[in-house]
Amino acid sequence: MVPQQAVWAEIDTPAPLIDVAQLDRNIAAMADAFALGPVSLRPHAKTHKCSAIALRQIAAGAIGITCAKVGEAEALAHPDIDDILIANEIVGPLKIARLVALARRSRITVAVDDAGNVAELSSGAASAGVTIGILVDLDVGMGRAGVATIEAAVALAHRVAGSAGLRFRGLMGYEGHVVDERALVQRHEGTRAALEKLSAARRAVEKSGLTVECLSAGGTGTYAVTSGWPDLTEAQVGSYVFMDANYRAIEGMEAFAPSLTVLATVMSRPTPTTVIVDAGLKAMGSEYAAAELLDFPQAHCIYLSEEHGRFDFPADPGLHLGDKVRVLPPHGCTTSNLHDRYYALREGDVEIWPIEARGRCQ
Amino acid sequence: MVPQQAVWAEIDTPAPLIDVAQLDRNIAAMADAFALGPVSLRPHAKTHKCSAIALRQIAAGAIGITCAKVGEAEALAHPDIDDILIANEIVGPLKIARLVALARRSRITVAVDDAGNVAELSSGAASAGVTIGILVDLDVGMGRAGVATIEAAVALAHRVAGSAGLRFRGLMGYEGHVVDERALVQRHEGTRAALEKLSAARRAVEKSGLTVECLSAGGTGTYAVTSGWPDLTEAQVGSYVFMDANYRAIEGMEAFAPSLTVLATVMSRPTPTTVIVDAGLKAMGSEYAAAELLDFPQAHCIYLSEEHGRFDFPADPGLHLGDKVRVLPPHGCTTSNLHDRYYALREGDVEIWPIEARGRCQ
Repeated sequence: MVPQQAVWAEIDTPAPLIDVAQLDRNIAAMADAFALGPVSLRPHAKTHKCSAIALRQIAAGAIGITCAKVGEAEALAHPDIDDILIANEIVGPLKIARLVALARRSRITVAVDDAGNVAELSSGAASAGVTIGILVDLDVGMGRAGVATIEAAVALAHRVAGSAGLRFRGLMGYEGHVVDERALVQRHEGTRAALEKLSAARRAVEKSGLTVECLSAGGTGTYAVTSGWPDLTEAQVGSYVFMDANYRAIEGMEAFAPSLTVLATVMSRPTPTTVIVDAGLKAMGSEYAAAELLDFPQAHCIYLSEEHGRFDFPADPGLHLGDKVRVLPPHGCTTSNLHDRYYALREGDVEIWPIEARGRCQ
Repeated sequence: MVPQQAVWAEIDTPAPLIDVAQLDRNIAAMADAFALGPVSLRPHAKTHKCSAIALRQIAAGAIGITCAKVGEAEALAHPDIDDILIANEIVGPLKIARLVALARRSRITVAVDDAGNVAELSSGAASAGVTIGILVDLDVGMGRAGVATIEAAVALAHRVAGSAGLRFRGLMGYEGHVVDERALVQRHEGTRAALEKLSAARRAVEKSGLTVECLSAGGTGTYAVTSGWPDLTEAQVGSYVFMDANYRAIEGMEAFAPSLTVLATVMSRPTPTTVIVDAGLKAMGSEYAAAELLDFPQAHCIYLSEEHGRFDFPADPGLHLGDKVRVLPPHGCTTSNLHDRYYALREGDVEIWPIEARGRCQ
């Protein structure tokens, strides 16, 4: 095997590195967690934005992918990535025209929380002769999008079911308010409360005469609950592929380990115990946690500025100008969005994996 | 003039909008502030990453541009953008090879704080037969890169002056620790302390027998001090072109107003007083301040998540699904890095301005 430092020497910095063996272990671990249960995996591609990774997830058993935006779905649609849930409300004529075009070549499902939006989706789909799958989005406690009550969900479900060009498929709810709660007990309690509301909505919709073929929820932090929740049909886990600093710090993530780091160069050594690297806010997403140095657990990130990271050490770490280090990003999902390609490393080989959906926020 | 909403209707969201008239007023106001003084303007292009804006700054009197990275300089080098300060240490053979290639076609100056780095820069430049201008970087209180003491600056200056392929041009110091301090009095006191250290270093270097043709410092928040500091030769102001939420909130910025916003669509209205828009962390830089709605000062940003912004209002603002609103980003410099093009609006016309240095963090 080629020594790590020799491989790194050929890669300019900052650069997003993927440890392919660890990535595959993460994908396998999540697939295992869902393999025997009632719930299927539909991993959220917002985390990696990359068809090479989506294809590995599908090869491991995922039934399709979740996307956040029409632009992500456009960038990732592929003969083998053809069943896509856009887990978001898609509003306005420009986006709906693109959604309809996408629905000609892929099986597309989107979320709704508004009757007027149902009408514009129906009009766009029907006039183009396509069918768009619809999940009614229920707010399960996050306070973002979604209808607030089960009664409203039932009413909207019937409106969807009666709309040309749309197929009512079921419900979704995202427990984003608890998904990265540090303490496992509180996280699982909050998740169960959210899923109980979603289950109650499913029962109410079914009692009203509609079939619910899809009930979707879930993020990485809550997989131990969602994977065993009988009413769910699929889970939208995303961050487990990379295990960023934020997720690594919460309880219950022992099955996963970091696979994405940002390779950085030591560019200044102002004191024996301070290391300045050439990766900052423009090379990694900084919200929710502090950056770490993967191979130097004793390092403490003092700050990230736009193009610098400052790490202080309890004692001189023996790092020199030009040395390369791996920074564990605070937030993987916003790190992938800053780069055009991953450097995928496996046994001394480097492959370039394009991040096709980078910047596709529309 | 075409109504604003009619222009917006043709632009999908989220999208970075530039109010060109306001951009030009900001450029003119900063040019005016430096027009009569001893200090020249070398605006920092990290803020906009766009040659169309750099050319407007140069047309208004700027002597060149500042960049943070070799990649930015590569992307922005142009027959009329040919004098570039990369205000950073450039470390390692891959970057130095690119720097040398760039120096064949542009006048390039970089910062140094290490004798070993001076040697590798010298070796690269001399063997390629090019000359790279050098500023010795002095830490003026920020605690990031830069030599710590005036004595070290003098010693490093002589090392540069004696190195083939390098031209010692002077010194720089960035007062980043005070540049966005909210209170004007404290900010100006901190700036004067930083500049006094830089001036003392200049005198010491000159006393030691070297000529200092360039003394560079400054950011937007400290322009009122730097523009009148007789020892300085140039200032690296950046954020004034856009005036993001962070800078707008500090004292003394009355000469400038926001010119960059992120156009967003109202995608959910979960309650009469809550508006969810389709722009979040993947559409704007979120650090240092809260996002604002430019045309709704009563709105309060509850959070940005990856692809959503939640704004709460004291009363129903009358916004409906599909309406478009302008979000003032917390941080302009990391917002530009997320998009491939600006939508530059002037009197009802829309021009597309490529953001050539987007993602060029290497």
